[in-house]
Amino acid sequence: MKRSMPTDEEFMKRCLELAVRGSGFVSPNPMVGCVIVKGGKIVGEGFHKKFGGPHAEVNALREARAKSRGATLYVNLEPCVHHGKTPPCLQTIIATGIRKVIAASQDPNPLVAGRGFAELRKAGIEVQVGVRRREAEALNERFFTFMRSRLPFVGLKLAQTIDGYIADARGNSKWITSPEARKEAHRIRSEYDAILVGANTVLRDDPKLTVRFSAGKNPLRVVLDGRLRVSATASVFRTKAARTVLVTSREGAKKNKRTVDKLAKQGVSVLAIGTDDTIKPKEILLALASLGISSVLLEGGGATSSLFVEARLVDKLHIFVAPKILGGGIASLQFSAPPSLAKAIRLSKISAKAVGKDFLIESAVEK
Amino acid sequence: MKRSMPTDEEFMKRCLELAVRGSGFVSPNPMVGCVIVKGGKIVGEGFHKKFGGPHAEVNALREARAKSRGATLYVNLEPCVHHGKTPPCLQTIIATGIRKVIAASQDPNPLVAGRGFAELRKAGIEVQVGVRRREAEALNERFFTFMRSRLPFVGLKLAQTIDGYIADARGNSKWITSPEARKEAHRIRSEYDAILVGANTVLRDDPKLTVRFSAGKNPLRVVLDGRLRVSATASVFRTKAARTVLVTSREGAKKNKRTVDKLAKQGVSVLAIGTDDTIKPKEILLALASLGISSVLLEGGGATSSLFVEARLVDKLHIFVAPKILGGGIASLQFSAPPSLAKAIRLSKISAKAVGKDFLIESAVEK
Repeated sequence: MKRSMPTDEEFMKRCLELAVRGSGFVSPNPMVGCVIVKGGKIVGEGFHKKFGGPHAEVNALREARAKSRGATLYVNLEPCVHHGKTPPCLQTIIATGIRKVIAASQDPNPLVAGRGFAELRKAGIEVQVGVRRREAEALNERFFTFMRSRLPFVGLKLAQTIDGYIADARGNSKWITSPEARKEAHRIRSEYDAILVGANTVLRDDPKLTVRFSAGKNPLRVVLDGRLRVSATASVFRTKAARTVLVTSREGAKKNKRTVDKLAKQGVSVLAIGTDDTIKPKEILLALASLGISSVLLEGGGATSSLFVEARLVDKLHIFVAPKILGGGIASLQFSAPPSLAKAIRLSKISAKAVGKDFLIESAVEK
Repeated sequence: MKRSMPTDEEFMKRCLELAVRGSGFVSPNPMVGCVIVKGGKIVGEGFHKKFGGPHAEVNALREARAKSRGATLYVNLEPCVHHGKTPPCLQTIIATGIRKVIAASQDPNPLVAGRGFAELRKAGIEVQVGVRRREAEALNERFFTFMRSRLPFVGLKLAQTIDGYIADARGNSKWITSPEARKEAHRIRSEYDAILVGANTVLRDDPKLTVRFSAGKNPLRVVLDGRLRVSATASVFRTKAARTVLVTSREGAKKNKRTVDKLAKQGVSVLAIGTDDTIKPKEILLALASLGISSVLLEGGGATSSLFVEARLVDKLHIFVAPKILGGGIASLQFSAPPSLAKAIRLSKISAKAVGKDFLIESAVEK
């Protein structure tokens, strides 16, 4: 019996496999993979490797060379029409003589959505959209959320005991989880454009907030400190491996002019938003969006995490659960006005996996 | 190629498969399965089906009949030498002409351990011990713990949100988890000799504490109420499907003589232990052990659960985690003196599985 021809579904699966190789390096761009198929065979493959580098389609077409003529191009996202860091893929696709484009999803950016497909069709290229759409959108959930809502996709990382404590009664949280979990946490960190911590975390743990135990780029570091209590000498402001933003209130900035000046000299951006020392989480997200940040990972502590969850601004949870019981300490989430059981915040798309001695539970937060 | 003969390991695996069929019906007896093998083939199988009924060996020998002569008997626990509810298996094994006995483990009861094997050897029967010992002891962990420590094996069932709350701020805990989880909770309940709740649970939820959503026997119901605040009209005292014990303090019993009398008339046993309204959890377990209770499942609430966990008397956790966030309410575990992170209580042998929309995390508690 002859082996049956691979299907569109199978070629698109290959695109997604290629796309994910860019994980941790392409954000705020989406992860994109592309294959060129001629006579039922793959003649070229490519993926977007790095932010600023060539797009998946260009890499695949380069590999296929002259075989692109009359071939079908599979890609998990609508090819771009705009000039960004690289020339638009559209021109290249048309120029190489591709006959048909099969895409998983159109560009979620409302200003673009569908324009790429329209241009292709105008050039006489057949276009088919929707193969493995759901998987393709899940792969780039941060990108799709940002493009659709214009607010950064917000992830929350917690490391807690099984009874829900993130630190003991003295505030000590080093180390609740295993080295394997910390490594995985760094991998997750590299997938976001920015990470955000509260002032208490800086004051207590003095973290560097860079990606060290995993491959991947450093996200922007954001410190939230309404009253500006942190010092310019904190590690997060001194290590130059990543850009850093301090978010404070206008009062906080005014009262601590010397710290602001010092930070500015060190290359730290200071955003003064909000009229008093309580800054609304949505304002923070809007400010970060205006800086081009499409995704933020909240990395603690309890108060900062709770602020965003309570405001229903968190899209995804990454909860590391350690095989420990504390019986007291700092609760992982504690709202100023906790809802009744009937109105509890619901989670969906939950998965759990073992990471070293710990569990990683991931889920979407329903809004 | 001829199929190779089944090994001792394989025949013992079959014993364990048979044994587990008694789950929920044999406690405080252990789950036991037995196979009789002659010429490399199983000629008889049996398991202990019900507390008070014939033992696994007797059932297997009955099925094998005359084929038992010269055969090998596989069993996951040392055959009994004592007259209990049934005549000792030892006599039957010797009488039927079994040539060899292969057992997974010896009887953990220090007063018995090894006596059965010695008697078999004295009768000229070859004895081999230790095949799949670890699995056999894990299967009957409640029985082994009780026999070795002389304290009941203590399980703790919790149903909590992902952020560690078992009830909202008003104390409402109905229903944190899904119907599937409640069904599984009833199955777990049927595996224990007794279930224990605090007075608050009776006052607030008025539960029946019987096994309804799963096959299995009803465990003894234990209500812990040091100050004797519950009423004799509570459901748990009125439903006759299971025996009930009220544990209170001597003062509690004295001050509420009328309630005690009423309960006694309704067939409820009242245990008055401890000198004031705080009863030490170890005293409770000793009292239950003296009633022949080999395992207890703690079913809430927060204070009662915490009391036993803090005293390091809990052997196993059954934690249902609902895909919800509450951000406040009653913490699942809260100790009077929580340890520092370095001295957190450690869990081992953790497993997690999906049950309906919830997760069930089970683990051993290190002591």
